[in-house]
Amino acid sequence: MTKRRTQVCIIGSGPSGLLLGQLLNGIGIEAIILDRVSKDYILGRVRAGVLEPGTVALLDQAGVGKRLHSEGLVHDGFDIAFDGTLHNVSLKELTGKSVTVYGQTEVTRDLFDAREACGQISIHGVEDVRPTDFGGATPHVTFLKDGVSHRIDCDFIAGCDGFHGVSRHAVPDEAIRTFEKLYPFGWLGILADVPPVRHELVYANHPRGFALCSMRSCDRSRYYVQCSLEDRVESWSDDRFWDELRRRLPDSVAEAVTTGPSFEKSIAPLRSFVCEPMRFGRLFLVGDAAHIVPPTGAKGLNLAASDVHYLFEGLREFYAEGSSGALDAYSMRALDRVWKAVRFSWWMTIMLHRFPETSEFDQRIQEAELHYVMESPAGRASLAENYVGLPF
Amino acid sequence: MTKRRTQVCIIGSGPSGLLLGQLLNGIGIEAIILDRVSKDYILGRVRAGVLEPGTVALLDQAGVGKRLHSEGLVHDGFDIAFDGTLHNVSLKELTGKSVTVYGQTEVTRDLFDAREACGQISIHGVEDVRPTDFGGATPHVTFLKDGVSHRIDCDFIAGCDGFHGVSRHAVPDEAIRTFEKLYPFGWLGILADVPPVRHELVYANHPRGFALCSMRSCDRSRYYVQCSLEDRVESWSDDRFWDELRRRLPDSVAEAVTTGPSFEKSIAPLRSFVCEPMRFGRLFLVGDAAHIVPPTGAKGLNLAASDVHYLFEGLREFYAEGSSGALDAYSMRALDRVWKAVRFSWWMTIMLHRFPETSEFDQRIQEAELHYVMESPAGRASLAENYVGLPF
Repeated sequence: MTKRRTQVCIIGSGPSGLLLGQLLNGIGIEAIILDRVSKDYILGRVRAGVLEPGTVALLDQAGVGKRLHSEGLVHDGFDIAFDGTLHNVSLKELTGKSVTVYGQTEVTRDLFDAREACGQISIHGVEDVRPTDFGGATPHVTFLKDGVSHRIDCDFIAGCDGFHGVSRHAVPDEAIRTFEKLYPFGWLGILADVPPVRHELVYANHPRGFALCSMRSCDRSRYYVQCSLEDRVESWSDDRFWDELRRRLPDSVAEAVTTGPSFEKSIAPLRSFVCEPMRFGRLFLVGDAAHIVPPTGAKGLNLAASDVHYLFEGLREFYAEGSSGALDAYSMRALDRVWKAVRFSWWMTIMLHRFPETSEFDQRIQEAELHYVMESPAGRASLAENYVGLPF
Repeated sequence: MTKRRTQVCIIGSGPSGLLLGQLLNGIGIEAIILDRVSKDYILGRVRAGVLEPGTVALLDQAGVGKRLHSEGLVHDGFDIAFDGTLHNVSLKELTGKSVTVYGQTEVTRDLFDAREACGQISIHGVEDVRPTDFGGATPHVTFLKDGVSHRIDCDFIAGCDGFHGVSRHAVPDEAIRTFEKLYPFGWLGILADVPPVRHELVYANHPRGFALCSMRSCDRSRYYVQCSLEDRVESWSDDRFWDELRRRLPDSVAEAVTTGPSFEKSIAPLRSFVCEPMRFGRLFLVGDAAHIVPPTGAKGLNLAASDVHYLFEGLREFYAEGSSGALDAYSMRALDRVWKAVRFSWWMTIMLHRFPETSEFDQRIQEAELHYVMESPAGRASLAENYVGLPF
């Protein structure tokens, strides 16, 4: 078995692991990043891309904001469509803030480039990764690489390996509480190289189901329609998708949709999940490893970023001042913000989708809520402040 | 059969029927009010008493605001208790408005006095009341009084006879849609002549269940605790009630509760109900005849008042200008506000009660919502503007 030592062993080379690594590198703390899969595989994943200003600031702090600022699309608001009409939520007017549309894949690519430029170690293609003795005196991570056993001793382990990763599963069942909700529908999404129908996002609540008009850039669109969990992507031709999308949009929007061949089409289930706590001795769970939100509120990546912020602050304080106060507070601080974002994502999901088993009363409540929220400045302000992200 | 004629026949002599009668009287429109029960019976009913400023203004308009202004308690806010702490909602700061605590019984008494003073006809103790031909050319109401058949021909019929009244039931089933939700708990309430624990209302969300500290006056308190629907009032001694109430309040509040013998104790189920439309030809449903809300948001009487406002405006326009435009819009206008208040009452109920079958995820969502709403100025503003009443 080969052995080495680092200060922080980061499991997972997605955006949260990479961002944590860059922030630590910036203050001279060494981290090794492990990942089961290759860089190309990670960059091939299709993910969302609405960044809160707090996330953008954190990426700036990590020194990876340059391309984001030149290529990202700044959105000062979005629209909610119902009753055949667009209703605008002006984030800028309501909160003074904007969001930035910049694909998670691009964020990840920028972070990879920055990590390579600073020469920090990442090890891809590792197997049988095991966070070990994080409750004891010798925290370390073991893994196999090309059939050879390795061990990395470290001060702390950051579990940034997503919902299906090993980090959360390494925690004894009795030490962890989980909270989960599954939604009775999925999102059928496509990517197509056509100009987006509108400059900003359109969320639609329609009797036929939810739809979302989103984009990755000025010539790449990302569209979604709510579908049944029994639906299979093979039964959705491009034509059927475009027809269904347009049916769920106000006429003026539907008429403006530019269609074209999709180059990605998939169905994703919607899930809310939280585990408590998020810290187990010297193991810290970050992002999707600890919580999942339905994509309706665009919170997944942004919540991962706020976890990274809290953990980075804790590690910085520990190494700079010898105090573990902020590390000890990590789980509480992160979870406070996590639950508010989980609530917001749940609420956006509840308010904008059609629920197959809903009662007529609950359907009317949904409609009354949409009308109230969009007509009331306080209602819109509450929606907007959550959408741009509550303060860290 | 005796016959007579009036302009508006009002079925039901509760606050909505009486208020409509007074407003109509003020502009010279004649109305006869019918009620199954006596004035004393009506004044013996125990009802809530938080009045929105819009309701107070309407009572002023009807000329019955004098005692309300001298004896009513003006509340500039209320408290929500959770996690052992009081969280203040300053209605005055958030909306510029206040609510007035003045028992519905007192409102009704003032309206009875005003009606007697102006000599308008009310007929109590009527049986077999039937709103008839309201879809046709000869709308009228028939009834028995002391065994004698009577018929009142009229231009319009106002169904102000509550949830169990005859007016809604006179409408053919196929002409009406109803929406209903029953909640899996009740409110056990007591009245006692003890000073209220605090100047303003306290709504408590506690692991043992909801509690509410309310009052009728400076020396009459109204307290509630959430109870099971299987609970029987006989199994709740005063001592048991006071103990349970105090357990659900923050220590500082619990210690300040003045206990004493109750003189009224009852269990009420919680229900949301709406019927659509609220107008059927020349029959108009008003207040509880058309909709019921759980008492959590204190909206029952206030919604009845806004219905009265819309109907009064319609009748005024009809008689003054010969136009039926505002009458034609009655159902739509009333229902728009009704659904928003139904939504608010549902939301307050969802947020403040413990649901016996709730999932751990939903319980955490409730807690996150309470924290978010109370910490966010936009969240508090939204709560406050609904509590003081959305504009007519």
